[in-house]
Amino acid sequence: MKKIKIDPSPNAYRLLNPGAVTLISVGDGKADNLFSVTWNMPLRREPSIVAMLSCKGNFSYTFIVTTGVFAINISSTKIAGAVLGCGRTTGSKVPDKFARFKLTRQVSEKIKAPLVEEAVGNLECRVSQIIDLGASSLILANILSATVAEEHYKDGGWCYDNGLELLHHLGGNSFAASTHEIVVKIPEE
Amino acid sequence: MKKIKIDPSPNAYRLLNPGAVTLISVGDGKADNLFSVTWNMPLRREPSIVAMLSCKGNFSYTFIVTTGVFAINISSTKIAGAVLGCGRTTGSKVPDKFARFKLTRQVSEKIKAPLVEEAVGNLECRVSQIIDLGASSLILANILSATVAEEHYKDGGWCYDNGLELLHHLGGNSFAASTHEIVVKIPEE
Repeated sequence: MKKIKIDPSPNAYRLLNPGAVTLISVGDGKADNLFSVTWNMPLRREPSIVAMLSCKGNFSYTFIVTTGVFAINISSTKIAGAVLGCGRTTGSKVPDKFARFKLTRQVSEKIKAPLVEEAVGNLECRVSQIIDLGASSLILANILSATVAEEHYKDGGWCYDNGLELLHHLGGNSFAASTHEIVVKIPEE
Repeated sequence: MKKIKIDPSPNAYRLLNPGAVTLISVGDGKADNLFSVTWNMPLRREPSIVAMLSCKGNFSYTFIVTTGVFAINISSTKIAGAVLGCGRTTGSKVPDKFARFKLTRQVSEKIKAPLVEEAVGNLECRVSQIIDLGASSLILANILSATVAEEHYKDGGWCYDNGLELLHHLGGNSFAASTHEIVVKIPEE
C-alpha cells in the first residue's frame, strides 16, 4: 500500500475522527508489541494531541511509560482478524505479534516503535501527560508524524471512493464497517 | 422510533464503541441546548464511565458545570443535517435548537436535560470529574440510564440488520456511514 506523509497538524487528527479501531504499536528498538484500542480520541487540532486509554496491567504499558512513545495504526476491514487477535493475546505470551498475525513492520520516522504497514493510517506519538484513573491511565500524546494510504486520502481527510472500509468495534467479536462518505448541508430554516 | 431501556453497565458503553458522532443535550429544566461532539469515548465498563471534550467557551459548558449532567445522543445518518447544524450554531443565538433542526425532546429518566428522540441511542450521564486542559475540559461522567432503538439492538450491542447507518464525522461537512456488521475470528497460526 502506497503511503504519503501528511502534516501532524492541523488535519492529522481527522484520521481518528470516524472512530475506527486502532492497533497501538510500541517498541524500544529491541522488542516491540501490538495491542488493539478502540477507546481513543483527538483532543486538540493544533498542536495535535490525542488521548487513549491503557490498562496499567497491559504488557505494552511499560513500553509506553519507559520509551514515552507509541504509534496509532488505523484499521480497515482487511486486517479485522489481526485486530481481534492482537486484542486477545498478550505480548508476554506472543512475543512477535507482527509474525503471529501476518503484519509487516513499517519504519517509523521519529520514534522507535514500528508502524503497521497494512494499516491505512499511522500516527507517531510522544506522550505528553499520563492521567491516573486507577487500574488504567489516560495517555495524552502529541502527534509527531503521520502517514496515510494515498488512495484513501483526499482534501485533508479520508476518501471512501477507492473501496475504503474502516473497521469499528461493536463489542466482543463483532465489528462494523464504514463504507461511504456523505457530504451534508445545514438544513434551511 | 421505539426505544428500550438497557442497563447502564456493563454493555451501555458499547453504544459509543463504533465512534459515531453524538449530539450532547444539556438543560436545567428551564432552558436547554444541543451541540455535536465527535471527541468522546468510553473509559470504563463497570461502573460505566465515559469521557468527552468540551471547549470552556461553549454555550453549553455552563449548563454542564452547573447542573452536573448531560446526555449523549447517538446519531444515525437520518439526522446528519441536524448534527451538522447543531455543531455550527451556538445556543446564544439559536435558543431552541430542537425546533430549529426539527428534533424532538424525549423525556429523560434521571436528569433534567432532554434526550433526542430521533437519536438511535441515548445515555444519561452525571459528571464525575472535570480535567482542565486549558481552553477545553475533558469531562468524565457516569452513565445513569440508557435507551436504544429496539430494532437496532441485539445481544448487548448494535444490530445493523434493520438498516442502521451510524454517522461518523470525517471533518468539515463530510461524514461517513457505517452500514454492516462483521463477525470476526482470530486467524489460525
